[in-house]
Amino acid sequence: MSAQKGLLIVLSGPSGVGKGTVRKALFESDDNDFEYSVSMTTRQKRAGEQEGVDYFFRTREEFEQLIASGEMLEYAEYVGNYYGTPLEYVNKTLEEGKDVFLEIEVQGAMKVKEKVPDGVFIFLTPPDLVELKSRIVGRGTDDMAVINERMEIAKAEIEMMRHYDYAVVNDQVSLAVDRIKKIIESEHYRVPRVIEKYENMIKGL
Amino acid sequence: MSAQKGLLIVLSGPSGVGKGTVRKALFESDDNDFEYSVSMTTRQKRAGEQEGVDYFFRTREEFEQLIASGEMLEYAEYVGNYYGTPLEYVNKTLEEGKDVFLEIEVQGAMKVKEKVPDGVFIFLTPPDLVELKSRIVGRGTDDMAVINERMEIAKAEIEMMRHYDYAVVNDQVSLAVDRIKKIIESEHYRVPRVIEKYENMIKGL
Repeated sequence: MSAQKGLLIVLSGPSGVGKGTVRKALFESDDNDFEYSVSMTTRQKRAGEQEGVDYFFRTREEFEQLIASGEMLEYAEYVGNYYGTPLEYVNKTLEEGKDVFLEIEVQGAMKVKEKVPDGVFIFLTPPDLVELKSRIVGRGTDDMAVINERMEIAKAEIEMMRHYDYAVVNDQVSLAVDRIKKIIESEHYRVPRVIEKYENMIKGL
Repeated sequence: MSAQKGLLIVLSGPSGVGKGTVRKALFESDDNDFEYSVSMTTRQKRAGEQEGVDYFFRTREEFEQLIASGEMLEYAEYVGNYYGTPLEYVNKTLEEGKDVFLEIEVQGAMKVKEKVPDGVFIFLTPPDLVELKSRIVGRGTDDMAVINERMEIAKAEIEMMRHYDYAVVNDQVSLAVDRIKKIIESEHYRVPRVIEKYENMIKGL
């Protein structure tokens, strides 16, 4: 399987569904072999941080130029600094045959899909939408207008599922992690991803 | 996941790759929940065999009429009797939410694909085509014309892979079984197979 290109795996889903927790558990499990996607940032380098290991450190001007030239796979601004995923780094890692895993918000995921359509897009869903509603309503202090707005946002986010390849229920973190691992392994067996290797073997006979 | 339709899983691959052995190991493993596909046959019922359990027993005329009206998912003639998979039985089982597993030859698999395009088509491959060649050559007693013909058939069968969804290497039966199980589970998480359930949930909010 050596000649196979790596997979870009994108985990996303509605706010509050637990994307970060699942991603963390996935990276901490011992049989994963994803590549951490090294992010780019405009914030100051802190003591002990290394260029290309913790982050790619760039000036605001450099970062904005990469955005303008379409070289950021996705990015966001947070407390006055940019954070994002450089396309070149991701493509280089995929070419080396390593899988790259990104955990991002739904808006960012749709932008990634435009740039890397053969990525594996996994949508993490709440175990039960009725329970989601009671959680939104149950906060108690909010008036109906606020509750309804939150419900509409939740519905719109669930509707985004249609743009993904897989829907994984986050009923229990360890189960969600297990499902995601199976999906990633299975995707490596998909014919469009392996056929070139077999065609080369046949040519060699 | 109750409302989800079952999956039709088709395992195929070149002659001699070990399809039967893998299918047997898959059914014998304890955590599978496929439905055996009850075949239809024109052969005589033997002592102890039950209609609809061991086989659906039909006359030659009845069987040929089902073929003519497109109601056989696939079929073959063997020692003067027909054997095949009735479409109605498969569809009924899928509607009940159960997965149906078929292990068939490549020609039959392509016919199944025409009738059930949303099935999951898995192609079992030999671990190494070079080794396959040396096995074909190594029988020793055959002349080059026979060897070349076998190689051409083997190549043509491998080329069929492009019509499948997944390619699974049969390097070790237990590993191949494990990969197939992961593929089947993952396919259950594919968005087109679950989105209706979520849309109904949203309507209910």
